Amino acid sequence: MTQRVEIVRRIMDSNERVALENRALLDKKGTYGINIMASPGAGKTSVIMETLRRLTPHIRAGVIEGDTAPVTIDSDKIAALGFPVVQINTGGDCHLDAVMVDLALKKLDLDQLNLVIIENVGNLICPAAFELGTHANVLIASIPEGDDKPYKYPNIYRGLDVLIINKIDLLPYLDFRMDYFSQGVEMLNPGLKTFPLSCKTGEGFDAWIDWLTTTLPAKA
Amino acid sequence: MTQRVEIVRRIMDSNERVALENRALLDKKGTYGINIMASPGAGKTSVIMETLRRLTPHIRAGVIEGDTAPVTIDSDKIAALGFPVVQINTGGDCHLDAVMVDLALKKLDLDQLNLVIIENVGNLICPAAFELGTHANVLIASIPEGDDKPYKYPNIYRGLDVLIINKIDLLPYLDFRMDYFSQGVEMLNPGLKTFPLSCKTGEGFDAWIDWLTTTLPAKA
Repeated sequence: MTQRVEIVRRIMDSNERVALENRALLDKKGTYGINIMASPGAGKTSVIMETLRRLTPHIRAGVIEGDTAPVTIDSDKIAALGFPVVQINTGGDCHLDAVMVDLALKKLDLDQLNLVIIENVGNLICPAAFELGTHANVLIASIPEGDDKPYKYPNIYRGLDVLIINKIDLLPYLDFRMDYFSQGVEMLNPGLKTFPLSCKTGEGFDAWIDWLTTTLPAKA
Repeated sequence: MTQRVEIVRRIMDSNERVALENRALLDKKGTYGINIMASPGAGKTSVIMETLRRLTPHIRAGVIEGDTAPVTIDSDKIAALGFPVVQINTGGDCHLDAVMVDLALKKLDLDQLNLVIIENVGNLICPAAFELGTHANVLIASIPEGDDKPYKYPNIYRGLDVLIINKIDLLPYLDFRMDYFSQGVEMLNPGLKTFPLSCKTGEGFDAWIDWLTTTLPAKA
């Protein structure tokens, strides 16, 4: 048992090291990296697609798609929008890690990109433990998941830079206590930047796009 | 690396062994065990609570609640209904395993119980790899998660005995292609017993309760 812990710790250390290298690469290229995490079905791909559609043309974005199974459902959607996309198949693993992202970054022409959006595997537990080297960790929560998720999955909320609350168009049909949800978030991550929005109606999207646009570094 | 794989395999073998012991214990006591898995927010606790409310009084049920964080939100709800409940805190792990369930089963008075419902950790990936020793693996899919989940999380669908499709009351508000979803399920698990239902409206619940009731073994 001691042995196993030691090995796992060594893997974590190694992930940390590669994450720092990924960050250094992104910084050198002037490319902003975002790690998008969420529960399955919270709308990661939908939010990414709507974000890509709304970015002004002078922002050039690429996408890295993480999936546990060898399916290209999400990658195909992104490619159909005309953006470069690299798919990572984790082979059953429940999260991306920095080494996978390192390999994927090298397949993108970062000199041409202001922004790389990484769609992590749909999971609220494992991705929280693996930094990828991005500039912002973003969680997409969604209204149908319920208002108790910050209390049940605290680790992922603690490490966030941005929280998107998706599917707010469903609020009239569900018992979601926004104050209870927000109280949980505030406890774990005080002052967390939060964007409630809907991919379906477009409500709230402007604020997220404004934030993202002003956050991107100037490209050399 | 070889070393790590070997250790992980030993852990899996050990899980398998304890799962068989759990099953033997349940069989000896005449208690039917169900392992309920789902994505976070699909409605595991709601389905369990509605199931407990609808069981005829001569069926005595107990619940084992798996959570990744040390919160008792779900356990408190079950206890409030008057059913015995044991909580397992996985300490950050993304799934229950047979050893955790073994410890929990020993805290329940199985001589008194016809049914033990185990609520696994909210996750579509990790729980698929760990048999608990229950008689039925049940997945709760939910309409807002989207219709592509069987294609993206095939492993969990392959190992199922029963599929519950929850939140069908939300079908009018979402673009969920039931035929596409069902086609994916059928490919992975032909003829899988499936119960579409809604905890909110109660629609479809009778069929699930009927199946469960007729499946329970006679108690000595």
